Amino acid sequence: MSQMPEQSRPAEEPPDVGELTPPDRTLMGPGPSDVHPRVLRAMSTPLVGHLDPSFIEVMNEVQELLRYTFRTDNQWTIPVSGTGSAAMEAAIGNLVEPGDTALVPTNGYFGGRMASMAERAGGEVVTVDAPWGEPLDPADVADAFDDHQPDVFGFVHAETSTGVRQPDVSELTDIAHAHDAYVVADAVTSLGGVEFRVDEWDLDAAYSGPQKCLSCPPGASPLTLSDRAMDKVLDRETEPRSWYLDLSLLEGYWGEDRAYHHTAPITNVYALREALRLVAEEGIEARWDRHRAIASDLKAGVRELGLEMNAPDAYWLPSLNAVRVPDGVDDATVIDYLLTEYDIEVASGLGDLAGEVWRIGCMGYSARPKNVEYLLAGLAEALAAEGFEG
Amino acid sequence: MSQMPEQSRPAEEPPDVGELTPPDRTLMGPGPSDVHPRVLRAMSTPLVGHLDPSFIEVMNEVQELLRYTFRTDNQWTIPVSGTGSAAMEAAIGNLVEPGDTALVPTNGYFGGRMASMAERAGGEVVTVDAPWGEPLDPADVADAFDDHQPDVFGFVHAETSTGVRQPDVSELTDIAHAHDAYVVADAVTSLGGVEFRVDEWDLDAAYSGPQKCLSCPPGASPLTLSDRAMDKVLDRETEPRSWYLDLSLLEGYWGEDRAYHHTAPITNVYALREALRLVAEEGIEARWDRHRAIASDLKAGVRELGLEMNAPDAYWLPSLNAVRVPDGVDDATVIDYLLTEYDIEVASGLGDLAGEVWRIGCMGYSARPKNVEYLLAGLAEALAAEGFEG
Repeated sequence: MSQMPEQSRPAEEPPDVGELTPPDRTLMGPGPSDVHPRVLRAMSTPLVGHLDPSFIEVMNEVQELLRYTFRTDNQWTIPVSGTGSAAMEAAIGNLVEPGDTALVPTNGYFGGRMASMAERAGGEVVTVDAPWGEPLDPADVADAFDDHQPDVFGFVHAETSTGVRQPDVSELTDIAHAHDAYVVADAVTSLGGVEFRVDEWDLDAAYSGPQKCLSCPPGASPLTLSDRAMDKVLDRETEPRSWYLDLSLLEGYWGEDRAYHHTAPITNVYALREALRLVAEEGIEARWDRHRAIASDLKAGVRELGLEMNAPDAYWLPSLNAVRVPDGVDDATVIDYLLTEYDIEVASGLGDLAGEVWRIGCMGYSARPKNVEYLLAGLAEALAAEGFEG
Repeated sequence: MSQMPEQSRPAEEPPDVGELTPPDRTLMGPGPSDVHPRVLRAMSTPLVGHLDPSFIEVMNEVQELLRYTFRTDNQWTIPVSGTGSAAMEAAIGNLVEPGDTALVPTNGYFGGRMASMAERAGGEVVTVDAPWGEPLDPADVADAFDDHQPDVFGFVHAETSTGVRQPDVSELTDIAHAHDAYVVADAVTSLGGVEFRVDEWDLDAAYSGPQKCLSCPPGASPLTLSDRAMDKVLDRETEPRSWYLDLSLLEGYWGEDRAYHHTAPITNVYALREALRLVAEEGIEARWDRHRAIASDLKAGVRELGLEMNAPDAYWLPSLNAVRVPDGVDDATVIDYLLTEYDIEVASGLGDLAGEVWRIGCMGYSARPKNVEYLLAGLAEALAAEGFEG
């Protein structure tokens, strides 16, 4: 260590960083989606403290609006202070106890993430198999339950990596509950855009991200647990392995006490409140209908360009359209063209589908004719530049 | 389960939640502090994607500005996607491996939080004792090292619960490094407001929150690790117990690859960038000086009212002023009076100091004469209403 007095050390020059001037993108990728102007405005609201009586009221309102959007009466419905993966880890890390067996799917990127979280929570992971791009077959789920008797079953309702919607959710929960297991649903890319019903489908836990069909900046992420699931969490013999995401501690803040746990991301909660108000104003079912209608136009448009959807219509996911990259076309070149020439963001495939598909979102405030027409125009030009004629 | 077709279920009425109209608070508590208007404006910037080339540039700028503010050249300097406690858990949960011994202090609320995180990480926790309201004595730290040979030593540079600043930081790190241990510093309430020097003090890891002396909304929280600390993290035999906060995975996003891990809280990163630009414009040392000067006025003012500071001047923390509640005065009544009559937030004591002190912040954009004069005027009136005459 230097023997110089601390204050004598010369200060380095401060970095010269200019004003924030991001490009004006049209966000048609797997998220974030375009944020509604009212939500952006809510983000600039001056803060109150996270224990302010007026913020307690905001918390109540956000919880009520989340319940409406999740279609649930669950008391334990909160925004988790992090992005969608934090809500996923809050669900998995609290419900899976050391020694529990967790059943997760192999049909997309996010089942693998669930597996990693369940292992880190001390669980033993077993899988129910389906190829990337296919939903789970209830018969396979039933077989996996018979083989492994899992305690917790996680599945992905809307696979962002494949554009596949899991149908027959009630069948899956019936199988799980016949085995006394708990069911966790990933609704990151469906909540607020694609039919999703926590209570009617008898889900024990579900989570989402705000930057998809809710069109809210990421940072506070929806989570809901049934009383039965919360009983398991509160009856754990060992503490969850994350303090930050320990739901028994978060209960103190979001439950009746409203006692300090950590400083909530106040502004993100403000924004989520405004995004959820927009859901309530539109009506949740009307919102599902809009996503389906606008995404149908998108789907028809890409087919007119001579492209194919990756998912059959039976389990097509309106909010995330995985479009096959045709032979002779380079996926990255088209993505770069759209970004450079049109300021449009779409994404490449992930994992098993890398290079095979483009992922085109149609979510929230991005699920508008204006965005879809613009995307189709840009895509037509990008394909033509690649010499593709459909 | 109901046998009705899913779509025939009548929709509940959407909640009737009005426009967001929070009160206009002056935030003089332990955080959040008042947010600078330029930072609020940055929060309403339309989003780009978290993998957009323009966002990669923003990430680079934020990292450079964080290094300047932390006084470090550490490559591993990032905003963690959560509030300050998430950054704390990222530091503790990655550095503490199962079987490691973690040494933490007992002299405030946040040492206890470190202990809980270290235990959950699989560590064995030992303590170095000091009363609430006192800093650690290097001799006690040396004794604790001799007794326990800890692998990781965490301490709190600026205790938000007691208003105490830890002096002699270099002495503590010298002791720890003589024992080959890693040192983690909690700088939640000092970064950007009170002298804090990562490299010169030879710290292995440090973290903070944005909503204190940086005057930025909570949601993306500063963290820095030395190469030596990051080597320990990357050489772990077992995975960290949180996927969300696994620094070896975050390396893929914030390191050279810029590959997807999770969706960064884009807007919070925008805001942090603007808050850190304000630090760079003012100059970090000038900013420390401002906090000390403005908080000195606050301290003189509360003493003129006949009140006493909880911390002696030798380890007074300018950013968080713990003021003794005088005999015969109810702390909560004064807090309510300030909130109701003046729209000012200050906080009560925590833990061992509950009912004993008020905690008055003087942080970032709240560290202004306007706020201090207003607080002193309100406090004088609140004390008079309680019949206290100093």
